[in-house]
Amino acid sequence: MLTELLRATRAHSLALASPLSDEDAQLQSMPDASPAKWHLAHTTWFFETLVLAPHLPDYCVFDERWPRLFNSYYESLGPRHARPQRGLLSRPSLTEVKAYRGHVDAALADLLAFAPEPARGLIELGCHHEQQHQELLLTDILHAFSCNPLLPAYDPSAPARAVAPEQAWLRHAGGIVDIGHDGDGFAFDNEGPRHQALVAPFEISNRLVTCGEYADFIASGGYREPLLWLSDGWAAVQAQGWQRPVYWQEDGSVFSLHGVQPLDPDAPVQQLSFYEACAFAEWAGARLPTEFEWEAACGLPGFANATDQAWQWTRSSYAPYPGFKPAAGAVGEYNGKFMVGQQVLRGGSLATPPGHARPSYRNFFPPAARWQFSGVRLAR
Amino acid sequence: MLTELLRATRAHSLALASPLSDEDAQLQSMPDASPAKWHLAHTTWFFETLVLAPHLPDYCVFDERWPRLFNSYYESLGPRHARPQRGLLSRPSLTEVKAYRGHVDAALADLLAFAPEPARGLIELGCHHEQQHQELLLTDILHAFSCNPLLPAYDPSAPARAVAPEQAWLRHAGGIVDIGHDGDGFAFDNEGPRHQALVAPFEISNRLVTCGEYADFIASGGYREPLLWLSDGWAAVQAQGWQRPVYWQEDGSVFSLHGVQPLDPDAPVQQLSFYEACAFAEWAGARLPTEFEWEAACGLPGFANATDQAWQWTRSSYAPYPGFKPAAGAVGEYNGKFMVGQQVLRGGSLATPPGHARPSYRNFFPPAARWQFSGVRLAR
Amino acid sequence: MLTELLRATRAHSLALASPLSDEDAQLQSMPDASPAKWHLAHTTWFFETLVLAPHLPDYCVFDERWPRLFNSYYESLGPRHARPQRGLLSRPSLTEVKAYRGHVDAALADLLAFAPEPARGLIELGCHHEQQHQELLLTDILHAFSCNPLLPAYDPSAPARAVAPEQAWLRHAGGIVDIGHDGDGFAFDNEGPRHQALVAPFEISNRLVTCGEYADFIASGGYREPLLWLSDGWAAVQAQGWQRPVYWQEDGSVFSLHGVQPLDPDAPVQQLSFYEACAFAEWAGARLPTEFEWEAACGLPGFANATDQAWQWTRSSYAPYPGFKPAAGAVGEYNGKFMVGQQVLRGGSLATPPGHARPSYRNFFPPAARWQFSGVRLAR
Amino acid sequence: MLTELLRATRAHSLALASPLSDEDAQLQSMPDASPAKWHLAHTTWFFETLVLAPHLPDYCVFDERWPRLFNSYYESLGPRHARPQRGLLSRPSLTEVKAYRGHVDAALADLLAFAPEPARGLIELGCHHEQQHQELLLTDILHAFSCNPLLPAYDPSAPARAVAPEQAWLRHAGGIVDIGHDGDGFAFDNEGPRHQALVAPFEISNRLVTCGEYADFIASGGYREPLLWLSDGWAAVQAQGWQRPVYWQEDGSVFSLHGVQPLDPDAPVQQLSFYEACAFAEWAGARLPTEFEWEAACGLPGFANATDQAWQWTRSSYAPYPGFKPAAGAVGEYNGKFMVGQQVLRGGSLATPPGHARPSYRNFFPPAARWQFSGVRLAR
Repeated sequence: MLTELLRATRAHSLALASPLSDEDAQLQSMPDASPAKWHLAHTTWFFETLVLAPHLPDYCVFDERWPRLFNSYYESLGPRHARPQRGLLSRPSLTEVKAYRGHVDAALADLLAFAPEPARGLIELGCHHEQQHQELLLTDILHAFSCNPLLPAYDPSAPARAVAPEQAWLRHAGGIVDIGHDGDGFAFDNEGPRHQALVAPFEISNRLVTCGEYADFIASGGYREPLLWLSDGWAAVQAQGWQRPVYWQEDGSVFSLHGVQPLDPDAPVQQLSFYEACAFAEWAGARLPTEFEWEAACGLPGFANATDQAWQWTRSSYAPYPGFKPAAGAVGEYNGKFMVGQQVLRGGSLATPPGHARPSYRNFFPPAARWQFSGVRLAR
Repeated sequence: MLTELLRATRAHSLALASPLSDEDAQLQSMPDASPAKWHLAHTTWFFETLVLAPHLPDYCVFDERWPRLFNSYYESLGPRHARPQRGLLSRPSLTEVKAYRGHVDAALADLLAFAPEPARGLIELGCHHEQQHQELLLTDILHAFSCNPLLPAYDPSAPARAVAPEQAWLRHAGGIVDIGHDGDGFAFDNEGPRHQALVAPFEISNRLVTCGEYADFIASGGYREPLLWLSDGWAAVQAQGWQRPVYWQEDGSVFSLHGVQPLDPDAPVQQLSFYEACAFAEWAGARLPTEFEWEAACGLPGFANATDQAWQWTRSSYAPYPGFKPAAGAVGEYNGKFMVGQQVLRGGSLATPPGHARPSYRNFFPPAARWQFSGVRLAR
Repeated sequence: MLTELLRATRAHSLALASPLSDEDAQLQSMPDASPAKWHLAHTTWFFETLVLAPHLPDYCVFDERWPRLFNSYYESLGPRHARPQRGLLSRPSLTEVKAYRGHVDAALADLLAFAPEPARGLIELGCHHEQQHQELLLTDILHAFSCNPLLPAYDPSAPARAVAPEQAWLRHAGGIVDIGHDGDGFAFDNEGPRHQALVAPFEISNRLVTCGEYADFIASGGYREPLLWLSDGWAAVQAQGWQRPVYWQEDGSVFSLHGVQPLDPDAPVQQLSFYEACAFAEWAGARLPTEFEWEAACGLPGFANATDQAWQWTRSSYAPYPGFKPAAGAVGEYNGKFMVGQQVLRGGSLATPPGHARPSYRNFFPPAARWQFSGVRLAR
Repeated sequence: MLTELLRATRAHSLALASPLSDEDAQLQSMPDASPAKWHLAHTTWFFETLVLAPHLPDYCVFDERWPRLFNSYYESLGPRHARPQRGLLSRPSLTEVKAYRGHVDAALADLLAFAPEPARGLIELGCHHEQQHQELLLTDILHAFSCNPLLPAYDPSAPARAVAPEQAWLRHAGGIVDIGHDGDGFAFDNEGPRHQALVAPFEISNRLVTCGEYADFIASGGYREPLLWLSDGWAAVQAQGWQRPVYWQEDGSVFSLHGVQPLDPDAPVQQLSFYEACAFAEWAGARLPTEFEWEAACGLPGFANATDQAWQWTRSSYAPYPGFKPAAGAVGEYNGKFMVGQQVLRGGSLATPPGHARPSYRNFFPPAARWQFSGVRLAR
């Protein structure tokens, strides 16, 4: 089953990159985003460095000059090519990166034939790590294409028309709830330790806020009324001239993976920053749920759009759970060191690979981030 | 009693400014800090705009051109002089600002003679607001003086030698605890609503981390070891070349309100950023308390340095309590709109005016802030 | 006579500062400008460091910590307080700086009693240096006051109404002309060596461009037509939103040393950047003169506004004359090291101290500078 | 002959791009540089927009959305894709751009069959314009490759070993000299009008400064001695940490179009900024020639390295010649609007296409530019 997870994960990355030309795969449109080619290589480097090098005897590194290029942020694993310059790596070519993937895949197959437990755990981690980058590959290419006046479509097929259920409030009685990952399946370190939290009674929306509802917010002057916004949010509105979600065009159409499309009023609004999510909630007379409320409520009957449309900003900042300790070694840098200055998002999106999301999953981004598949679920 | 609070508060501001020359009182050394003269005027503007204008019949504004100069951040109260340019207001002079204070004090006395309840509440708020600026006046002048190569002393008298109690861990059994302001006394809106939270058993230090302990952290290479730091913290260390607390001199002495003084190993370390506080805690094998832990523990026997030395960074980001709603009107901008991107500090400092601090008090600053009287209390 | 020059120069600086409060005298509104107090101290430091220390036996430096504060840009004279932070020097006070001036004046009087030639030459240089700072003191306080929404007047008296002569073209036959300082009087090093240059026949305007003429340029869309501008100029227009000269108000009035005044159509336009001067000339079907043309023409009959109104941008960049060699020692840093990236202005302004200007005088500023008394004389 | 010039020029661009992969051809490593693909397309757009559209009846634009992508800086030709984002144009692909070239080449052939004079002149301009971009294609790809830690070689063949002639001073008697383009051949507008200038007697070096000589400058502390530098140059040294020419490696090797190679002491030093050129000259007890001196001297016997090695910084800023008027229409934006803030370079480089350089040729770059084939010839 681990063999199958690995095979499927590695194949899916290549499938996601297949509509891209060599030139597309090299695009880096801002420091926070990475080229598709880099995602393909970095996920491979992760297996090579954290799995193969320590666990496969006689493993031969594909190219000794590459780890420096494809290490993302692991201080304990040596110097790194500067993040904003990932788009300058025309060499190695996409073809060479695919050869790198093949080399590592073959070695992983060798390792899996006899892999001891710690190696198996790391391979599983590598698969989930690669799934995260699969979503980023899509968010990043979408951003890159949005910077091209030709506005190319990643997927030129027509999108399906959305159907939003009637909005309704789901009630949760509050009380002591269990939070965090439970059971045998895979989870990231930041989803534990499982613990209890006390939650007051609350209501949460059955579905995400739609584009039509968000258009009403805009039409009513939402982007011009400072009292709806957090102070940092209003500063961003003014400094960057925000007037609508980042991929909404002036003419009312919306840029997406399917290119420019008419706004679909029933589709969940996407690519919102936390600031925009909060301002909308304020305008709507509601608020964002905390991440504990979200986790407690996500199993309620009628809870739609849990993981299939957009990540859902929560009112919780990203912080360690009680008793959290990063793992020893490089893997300990995976999640813990980012636990300040970011907000938690829960759920999953249309770009999240199948099987990747979980009720305890904690996604996180800075509050100004506007290039993710991120939307709003209201609470009150 | 409100009369006395008002009188004492207003007098204390002038007393704090009394060691400053007209030139000193105009210094603004960074956008986040304000001139002492501006603090004196802004706190007066607050009374004039929020108390006298709406509640004292026939009140005559001191100078119609000034509200624009001394409004801090209230979007609902009109345009404002740009914050980074407060130090460019040589006019009005300090003398004129003192006349402004006298004018408003006289009118407040008139109003107090008959003031109805809402006005009395706002006067009380104005006093506590002014107390906050009293602490800022000191933090800001200290920062300004630190930029002058002559390193002038705000208070040239010699500081008392600190005596730190033996470090000890105080144990809290955890469970459901009451959080937030209770009772009749004054509190800011962000201290409520009072509510319950669930806290796991924990230990907390009886006192703050001392300069001597922090010097050990530095000597052991704390500022050179990325794995001790949050990612944003390490980026700050590198981008800004942090090597020690901001007012520690290369020769081992420390700049303070008393000018340059020898490092006092028993004194609590001050002016730490949240990043430095976290890195120290990591190095010490401990962590920062959450704000709920702090509030639950601050009444434990042996809990020293609660409010008399330094604000204490907590691991909690600044967020609304369950059920929090900002007040209507301009006062609603006081606290709520800053509830993202900042960390909560608890306690109080040597610069906090007497009577200002409370166990439920929530101070907050961005994690990189290094000019406050901010230190560390460990938990585990 | 040197004694008298010194006395008058030193007295004039104090007279210029006399309308300023202690607070005014500390204002620094941008890195390129300096506080009036700093000008008073720096010109004194110049005498102390370059004249008294080397030439007056047993001279005692006023305060050993101050040279670092008041050295402007002399690399050979040790470390300097950062230029953008001159406004943070509330200490020393204005009173102390005046005492510094008295101390140095007394020592200079002692020195003059017996001064040998090199010292006399340096004292003369110090006087002309101080005269330069007298003009800067005015340009800088004007800029600082322009940043205060109260728009204070340096000189509240009403300005005289200007009378512009009829515009006329003065013809110069061209040929080989002598350029650079000649004779016994004082000149800065950059005015020599005197040399010959070949100039084609040209015409030059008898007077400066007036505010009325410049208003026509604006009214005809001058700030919206890119083809009138140099590329760098148009970039500045767009990046900084230029729509009119920097002290012209939206309502048509003009901020000046006399505070806000109605636009005087006959007065020469002031505070233009080189970019604005060039765009105006292009619009007017003319061009700016070269510095050689200006120097050759300034003695022509009818050549008005030579030195009494505004410095006149030339089409010449600031470069060394053939055979120019900086003086040995610190004085060599005076002019030569700035000979790139700036444009030469010729003439003199209403803020230039009497006796300071000369036909061979070379003033220079970066092309984007907009806070000098700088205008336009056309050529063709 | 125009037909042949056009054919050869168009073919040479493709030949220069032939060692580049699709990914290489898209690299943009800084705002001042452009991708090779963009150079190929922009030069084609120039022909399409300025030649074919106005002069070839029924010419059909290749793609109506492209002119916006490939207009460089012509304000009169409509809105443009932002210069720093040229590297984000993965679409159109390199293949499509080559098809664009074919389409335009075919139309130009049609036009040449009957082209009237003005069209022929524009075609000739288009060829020389494209030659300029051929050099930029090389400078830009060299910069881009320098940002890749793998340091790829554009041309992996080994460079020829340089042989520098013995240094000698060539004497020019000075006097009135003729400056600017003369005769029937092609020249850019900025090379005229031809005019006379007066030059004092001078000496000029027979050859360029070598890497060996420049290494001596470094070894003697040239990058640490402020008094050798112009003020702006020293600021750049400090702000950007300059310690050697930009492509010189810490280990003494040099990155070039041939990849990393040992320093060749006889080869002319390259990629110097004007600031470095001036500092070297100061250290060597010499100076840079003016552009008039250069032009007057370049025909002297023994004047080596005129156009075959490196452009030669002059002490002249880029300004219009007497009587210069930009051409009417879009072509008038070609040169004139850049005539401020830049220094003139004379000569030509190893990257200059054959036949492109002339004695009257005026190249120009900002004084901090360090990515051109720019070196030093001394004068005195």
